[in-house]
Amino acid sequence: MLSLLNFRAQIDEELRKFFNSKIEGRNGVERDVLETLKEFTMRGGKRIRPVFMLMGYSLNDKISDEVIKASISLEIMQSYMLIHDDIIDRSDLRRGRPTVHKVFNYDQRTNEGLAIIAADLANTYCHEVLMEAKFPLELSRNAFLEMEKAYELTGIGQLNDMVLPFLSGISLDDVTRVHRLKTAEYTVNGPMKIGASLSGYNALSSIESYGIPLGIAFQIQDDILGVFGDEQTLGKSVKSDVQEGKMTHLVVFSLQKGSKSEREFLKKMLGNKDIADEEFGRFKDIIRDSGALNESEKLMQLYYNQAISAIPNLTRDEDNREELRILAEKMVSRVR
Amino acid sequence: MLSLLNFRAQIDEELRKFFNSKIEGRNGVERDVLETLKEFTMRGGKRIRPVFMLMGYSLNDKISDEVIKASISLEIMQSYMLIHDDIIDRSDLRRGRPTVHKVFNYDQRTNEGLAIIAADLANTYCHEVLMEAKFPLELSRNAFLEMEKAYELTGIGQLNDMVLPFLSGISLDDVTRVHRLKTAEYTVNGPMKIGASLSGYNALSSIESYGIPLGIAFQIQDDILGVFGDEQTLGKSVKSDVQEGKMTHLVVFSLQKGSKSEREFLKKMLGNKDIADEEFGRFKDIIRDSGALNESEKLMQLYYNQAISAIPNLTRDEDNREELRILAEKMVSRVR
Repeated sequence: MLSLLNFRAQIDEELRKFFNSKIEGRNGVERDVLETLKEFTMRGGKRIRPVFMLMGYSLNDKISDEVIKASISLEIMQSYMLIHDDIIDRSDLRRGRPTVHKVFNYDQRTNEGLAIIAADLANTYCHEVLMEAKFPLELSRNAFLEMEKAYELTGIGQLNDMVLPFLSGISLDDVTRVHRLKTAEYTVNGPMKIGASLSGYNALSSIESYGIPLGIAFQIQDDILGVFGDEQTLGKSVKSDVQEGKMTHLVVFSLQKGSKSEREFLKKMLGNKDIADEEFGRFKDIIRDSGALNESEKLMQLYYNQAISAIPNLTRDEDNREELRILAEKMVSRVR
Repeated sequence: MLSLLNFRAQIDEELRKFFNSKIEGRNGVERDVLETLKEFTMRGGKRIRPVFMLMGYSLNDKISDEVIKASISLEIMQSYMLIHDDIIDRSDLRRGRPTVHKVFNYDQRTNEGLAIIAADLANTYCHEVLMEAKFPLELSRNAFLEMEKAYELTGIGQLNDMVLPFLSGISLDDVTRVHRLKTAEYTVNGPMKIGASLSGYNALSSIESYGIPLGIAFQIQDDILGVFGDEQTLGKSVKSDVQEGKMTHLVVFSLQKGSKSEREFLKKMLGNKDIADEEFGRFKDIIRDSGALNESEKLMQLYYNQAISAIPNLTRDEDNREELRILAEKMVSRVR
């Protein structure tokens, strides 16, 4: 069976064509920024959001060139999210290269300003691509409203994520809620619903039973890799999550289970830009020894299983079911 | 004759209802941010963009409750633009009160992050409102694509605006181009085209002959008021344009015509956060004495006249023509 993952080359080709059409005829700073947006989008990324959009579409219709063209909207949306995130987190590296606000050579304020607007342009292009795609207008409108819902919920999730470090007594559920809003919506659930809407698939709510737990499982796995993964694959420092003070299941669980001195150490390290190698080593040891790593992996598995067991609700088609399993597996199997 | 400006109370009412519906049931940081977005949008603003959308709609159809509802999308877009602008410009005040990134009480990074996402939510709501409005789908789609064009051109204008201070030998035309892209599109031309599209008006390109020069005239007048206006009316310091190093016709003309020592003084003041009152006084004197103020006023008048003389191209309806004159007059008549 040909997996939807095989469409990734064609998605890349459509992305390249789209950005080239935007760059053409532009000069000066406009060209620089659009070239940067193209390079940033093309430099990496697994195209999972477009693929999930194709997955949603497949639930009711055969993949066409037109839906592949439309699917790049979600990769452009991803660039928008990442660029603003990197500014907020003051990150220097993304996908192994400088973040967008680190690419330009003006003063810091201007560089950040250009990055904010570069992302805003990506946001516009995301909308434009979806609306330009030729589908029955009623279906386009439905897809579009699903996209706005995903944008809104992701924004709400980002707000909550930013203030988590300021709250006292965060629970694992608080973290899970942020994962659901911030990650699951625009990574799996939203893209699938957008694609499904475009194909006229009616059982949109059944998608949630797969898309939301899978999105959460993906984020838990991402958080584990963020600390215990390989820098080369990550494209950024393994320390960066800790330096940003990111509140993950790993951290919250350790803060609940660790000894007093361990808890104090963790709190001191979270948000510490200058964390030394030995300190980072001890940070990882505490997370491992407190059982947090193990618990996070179990939680990830739990959500993964939940997604898998929801597959029969989405479709009776055996190929589609197999594809849903392949994509779910792909989302959590990235090597540590 | 009842001017479209009289719809502003109803526009405010629709804005209030929209934000209340978004705030309802939300708590914590989500509620804080949405309340801030509402307060920021309601605290002032002349609703000129929604009114120009109604103007565009009037060219082919009678104003309905539905188009008034849809028109608030442009006021929400304006909040989005201003919030990101204020972050980029590091402005502290807007409409006489703290800018959005100055409202929250976390650390600076988090406050700015919340403001970036608050604006992103406004962007989403702008799209949602336009797409939720009940118009024939073909017309909605056209209006929507006009909105994306306005967003794109405004973004391109903002990029150019940010790097103007870094370019050597800027001409008045460079400044005019930024005005056209950054201001005229999303203030007059875009809103009118969006409204006109929704009513099925076909001669969209004729709108440009009015919307673009009027938008430029408005920005020139805004720049004059930004330096020579009244702080109370401005809602921010009269020094702020100079402190931000804003490149306006006033400044570029003075840099061309002033003596060597005057030019050096102007350059020293542009971007100077700590400009003293006497220095600001001398800055204004140079602009006045070099003839820049006079020339800017003449240029503003020229673009204004251009807009007025384009009116017959847009419509044969005498009420509409009168309304187009009223709105044009309103745009440039704000007292100094």
